[in-house]
Parts: sequence; C-alpha cells; structure tokens
Amino acid sequence: MPKELIIEKIEQAVKILNEKNIDMWLTFTRESGNMKDPMIDMIVGTGCTWQSAFIITKDGNSIAILGSLDVANIRSFGAYKEVHGYVKSIKEKLLEIITRYKPEKIAINFSRNSNVADGLTHGMYLELIDHLEGSEYKEKLISSEEVVASLRGRKSSSEIKLMKNSISETLKIFEEVTGFIKPGVTEKEIAEFILEKCSERNFLTAWEKDYCPSVFTGPDTAGAHAGPTDRKVERGHIINIDFGVKIEGYCSDLQRTWYVLREGELQPPAEALKGFTVIRDSIQLAAKEIRPGKTGAEIDAAARNFIVQQGYDEYPHALGHQLGRFAHDGGGLLAPQWERYGTLPLIPVEEGQVYTLEPRLTVKEYGIATIEEEIIVTKDGCEFLSQPQKEIYLIK
Amino acid sequence: MPKELIIEKIEQAVKILNEKNIDMWLTFTRESGNMKDPMIDMIVGTGCTWQSAFIITKDGNSIAILGSLDVANIRSFGAYKEVHGYVKSIKEKLLEIITRYKPEKIAINFSRNSNVADGLTHGMYLELIDHLEGSEYKEKLISSEEVVASLRGRKSSSEIKLMKNSISETLKIFEEVTGFIKPGVTEKEIAEFILEKCSERNFLTAWEKDYCPSVFTGPDTAGAHAGPTDRKVERGHIINIDFGVKIEGYCSDLQRTWYVLREGELQPPAEALKGFTVIRDSIQLAAKEIRPGKTGAEIDAAARNFIVQQGYDEYPHALGHQLGRFAHDGGGLLAPQWERYGTLPLIPVEEGQVYTLEPRLTVKEYGIATIEEEIIVTKDGCEFLSQPQKEIYLIK
Repeated sequence: MPKELIIEKIEQAVKILNEKNIDMWLTFTRESGNMKDPMIDMIVGTGCTWQSAFIITKDGNSIAILGSLDVANIRSFGAYKEVHGYVKSIKEKLLEIITRYKPEKIAINFSRNSNVADGLTHGMYLELIDHLEGSEYKEKLISSEEVVASLRGRKSSSEIKLMKNSISETLKIFEEVTGFIKPGVTEKEIAEFILEKCSERNFLTAWEKDYCPSVFTGPDTAGAHAGPTDRKVERGHIINIDFGVKIEGYCSDLQRTWYVLREGELQPPAEALKGFTVIRDSIQLAAKEIRPGKTGAEIDAAARNFIVQQGYDEYPHALGHQLGRFAHDGGGLLAPQWERYGTLPLIPVEEGQVYTLEPRLTVKEYGIATIEEEIIVTKDGCEFLSQPQKEIYLIK
Repeated sequence: MPKELIIEKIEQAVKILNEKNIDMWLTFTRESGNMKDPMIDMIVGTGCTWQSAFIITKDGNSIAILGSLDVANIRSFGAYKEVHGYVKSIKEKLLEIITRYKPEKIAINFSRNSNVADGLTHGMYLELIDHLEGSEYKEKLISSEEVVASLRGRKSSSEIKLMKNSISETLKIFEEVTGFIKPGVTEKEIAEFILEKCSERNFLTAWEKDYCPSVFTGPDTAGAHAGPTDRKVERGHIINIDFGVKIEGYCSDLQRTWYVLREGELQPPAEALKGFTVIRDSIQLAAKEIRPGKTGAEIDAAARNFIVQQGYDEYPHALGHQLGRFAHDGGGLLAPQWERYGTLPLIPVEEGQVYTLEPRLTVKEYGIATIEEEIIVTKDGCEFLSQPQKEIYLIK
C-alpha cells in the first residue's frame, strides 16, 4: 500500500472523527506478522511486533507508540506524525499521550458486529484495561465500528478506479472461461484454468484460493464457499462460478451462470430459464430500493420476497456485502434480521459504499442459479459497477 | 497444509488435553479471510466465514460448527469428525455440543501473554459470553495458552525435518550474498539480491518482505525490524543481515555478521573482532544453560550478563523466541522479566521446542554485531539446528 493512500485514509479518518464527535481512535495490536488487525493495511501500511498503539485524533494528529525496535520501520514509512518507542512497557507513554488529549470518547478496535472493526484480541483488551487502570479513560472506551464502517465504506475516487479495474479483469476471465467449459471437464479443471489466468497476469484471488473460484456444476453441488470437486460438467447442468481478484489491494467479487445445452436443445428448458430470470430480476428490484438512508434489511427483503413469491426457497444468506480491500468488507450488510447478522442489517447505507447483490435459488434437477453484481451507492440511488449479466450463458 | 499434518496436530492436542486435564479446547472465530486466528492453519487447515467453533475434546473427538455455507468446504477437507451447520445462529448447536460433554474446563483461544494463543477478538468474546449466558459453562472458560504453547512448541519429527530444510536453504543464501556484498552497494540492493534468490526458488520470506531481510551496514544503522535503506556499504563497516524463509509452511530465522576490510587491513580491527567474539561466545554460554525445566529468564541472563561484563550495553530485546509455522511462535520466550514480556520468561522450556538465540551489541564506529542461531531443546540439553557462525565473514 503506497504511503499516499495511507495518508489519504488517515485524513479521511480525521474528518469522520469530527463528524461523529469522537476524540480519539486507538488501534491496539501486536505481532501483525502472525495475525494482522484488519485495519492495519489501510491506516498503518506496515507491521509491528510488540504491543503497539496507532492513534488518530480529532484534531488531526497521528501517533504511533511501538516497541523500540519497530520505531525505525514505522518512522521511515512516514505515515505517522509522531512515533514513540518504548523498551519495557507501553503503559507509560500510552497514558501520557491519552492524558495529553483528555478524550471524552476513545474508539478502540473491537466490535461485536463488524469483523473488520474487531481486530483487538481479548487478551490485548485485558492488557489495555490494565494499562488504563486507575485513570478515568477506562470509562471512555467505545467501539470503533462506526468509524471503521465509514472509513472502509466510503470509497475515494482513487479507490473506485481500482475497484472498477478489478471488476473488468474478472469479467474478462469469465469470458475466457466460457470458451473452456464443455461436457466432461471437472470443476477442478475449470478452477485451474481460472487460477492460471490469474497467475499469468499476477492477480491475487480475492479470497482463499481453495475456494476462489468456487465452481458448481449440476444439481448435486456442494453449495457456496466450497472448493471445486472432481464432479464433471454434463449436458443439462446449470453451472455457477463465484470468483474475484485482488489487484493493487482492491477486490472484486462476481458470479455468473451458464447452462450446458443437451442434444437437440437450442435454449435451456423453461425451469432453468425461469430460475435465471427470477434471479436477474430480483437483483434489479433490489437495486431500485438502494439509496442512502435505506437499511440493508429493507433492500434484502426486496429480492428475498420476490424470489419466494415466484415459488422458490429463500436464499440462506445475505443479499450482499460491502467490498473493498477485503472481499467481505465494511460495516453495513444487505441482510435479513437473523441473529447471526447482529445489528448490521439495520445500519443505513451511505453514499460511496460498494455492495455485492448475490441472491441464489435452486432449479431442481439442473443446478443453482446465482448472479452476483457490484453496485456503488450514489446520492439518490445506486449505479452498477459491473456490467450485469442479462442472459444465461450457453455452452453448446 | 496437508490434511495428514492437521490430523497429526489434532491428535497431539488430544494428548495435551489429557496431560493438562482440560476437557475441551474451543477455538471461536469468524471471517478467517480478513483476519485469521493464528491456530487455524495448524488445527483447521482451511477457512471459515461466519461465527465458527472448532472443538477438540479430551476423549478424542473433533467437532466443527459453522455457517451452513461453510460446511461443505470443512467436510470435504476432512480433518474434523463431526461437522455441523447452522443458518441463523451458532448458539443452539454450540450449547448442545458443550452440554453433551459437561466440561469442567474449557480452554478458549485468548491469552494475555501469548499472541499465538490469542486469536479470539474482544467482540467475539462478548458474543461467546452471550451464547453461554444462563448456562454454567461461562464459569468454566480458561485460556488456551498452555495447550497452544505445548502444541506449537513440541515439534514432531516431520516438523523438525521441514525446519532443518528451511535453515539449510537460508544458510545457502547467506553464502551467496557474501559474494555480492562489496563497497558501494546499498542495503536495498543486498535485500533485492536475497529476495530474487527466494523468488527463483519459490520460497516465501519468514516475515513481511518489507523487512525480511533486514540489512544493516555501518555505525548509523536503523536497528532491528527496519527495512533496508539506500545507505551504502563502506570499507570499515560491520554488516548484519536478519533473514529467514518459509518453505512448506515452516520458518527459519537467522542472522550473520560481516566486516568490510579497509585498505591494507588483513583482519578486522580489535574492537570489531571483540564484539563479534563476545556475541558468538554468549550464544554458546546460553546454549549450555538450556535444558527442559529451565526458565527463559535464566537462559537469557546467561548471555545478557556475559555481554554486560564485557563492557557492552545489554540488548534491548529478548535473547530468543520460538519458531515454527511463524517466525515468532510458541509460548515460552528466552527473555528478561520486563513488563512487556508478561509471564512468558517464567515458563519452563520443554523438550522438542525450537528457539532462536540472538543477542546483539554495538561496536562503536563500526556497526552492530549480532548472530542468530536456532537450537532444539533435547532431553537433557539442546542441539544446534543451524551451523553456528564461528568467524566474522570478511569482505575484501
């Protein structure tokens, strides 16, 4: 991550702190080489070893407190205005900096709802509480989830440009793989073809290679988030591929659906066509619901209810998630109010956020119809960042 | 990570649970693609998305509870005996499984001292407590740090073989770079040379590339954990390189020291030679202290006191850390009792653990002398896994 992008995000964070009236945002972490707080790549840009505090303040300062041997690295990277080292314990310097600001609200890096705002481990939380023991600041801690949701969600124009590039490269690969799919090839072979294209072009996959791409052919497929199997493509199968790339740090996440024509067929059977069309139209219905201020639950319901009205089971997951530096990114989620989603479905969507729209339904005896598009929330609606799939792709 | 190695580690964990009389070990996590609990690669081997529980029991069972769309992936990987899916919330199934076992002690994945045992985020901890609310099991939670320390620390023979291979490849690269170092080349150029060797041979670096290798030339170097700079090698410099590779999942971490002869010099000046010799000998002194049952603090003191007696400042860090799948791995640490190390220096070392030994001292006007070796703790002492550096390497 270039230093300029990190500094841009730190400056954006300062604005968000002012907007939300939070005095200080403290990211408390250690050993980023073993497990990295999800915000580190966006607001630090390099690693740390011992207990470390990355502090951004409402008045525009940025302060890093680190084990002494990490100081040179953070200082030479140059994104933080103040860099302090310690040898024996972080406690003294941390208290000194906090006391300098006398904050009423300190956002720290934990959240029940949003994993990207939840990088503080429980062990480190206990350490932090101990460091603050006896001061008034223990009572001032709040979750950073609102700050993180806005910072990750609201994409800058340079971020949008990078995301569009990842989408267009993904769509190219979908086009290429259409020429490769034929009866007899296995899910694994299709995945290997796609991974070769990534490797040739130096693209990372947007999530773990084991199931990026996910490839599902026919009626007995494993379901989302499963790795490709030795199952072979057959005539009469619906095929779905879920895939994304990460280029210059930004992810795409898209799905497309194919049908393999049987002997004598010129087009898919009515059931397959209907399944595809219902999914395609549910995405457009949901997109029409999107505008700043709407909740994720309302937007999800538009697609979910339509699919159920058409006689299908509801999809067992959210309609869509944000994406950015991660394939699953940001705070707000287009999801039903199920316990596993916590309060995320009730957060209003904001201008500048990028979401996937990815409903799913099963076409009995054929396979799974899903399409996944990406949209960006605009001032009064949304725009598609991906060229939506209009017709089911046919394999002859 | 191949399934066989995961199953080997799960079986080893069952033994450790019996030895320590812990009924159940619960790793509670989510969204491993964004931030991965440090144990996942060792005991799961693939990823998860929603709130997930990986449970290993004293009676030898292994149980995964996952969002329904992750089930196929974990099941097809095949390391867990029971795999359960949920759609709306993990709570019901989690309570059902825990209740089946009625555990008196449940080790969960948090630790104040050991980052590798501290993958549970604070947000997820609060979720877990909520799930257990009203049951007796909230009171049965303990830290998994002892289980993790033993599991990561005690290397199996297949793990030792992989680690020896990483060491020998690192030493080869040190040999090659000795031919490359000469007056006028920069730290960055030396680092690039080393990274090219890695890339040619498909080796990952053992820690983040930005400062793996770390290269320090001359008296005004940045200090440990800093990335290489544009500083040029000059005659009369002591040069230090800190570097390791990760091959088949296992890391090496070694340091070597060079001296660049000045015109007319046949050997380094007395101060440089003495600094090197003190470091070299302090490592041997520390190694003689190592045997199962000794504490890290005692072992660290052997090297630290010797260096101070010879008239140098004490090194501002630990003598050594464990390594394995991470460059900084395991529980116990060969460190002084400084607050930042918590209780780690007091944990007795165990047979089968691999530690680095890496003291440091400054030779004024020349640079930093450090050597880093790797040893394995044996039944009654230790053995060097690396071929120790005996003489300072000379650049003509």
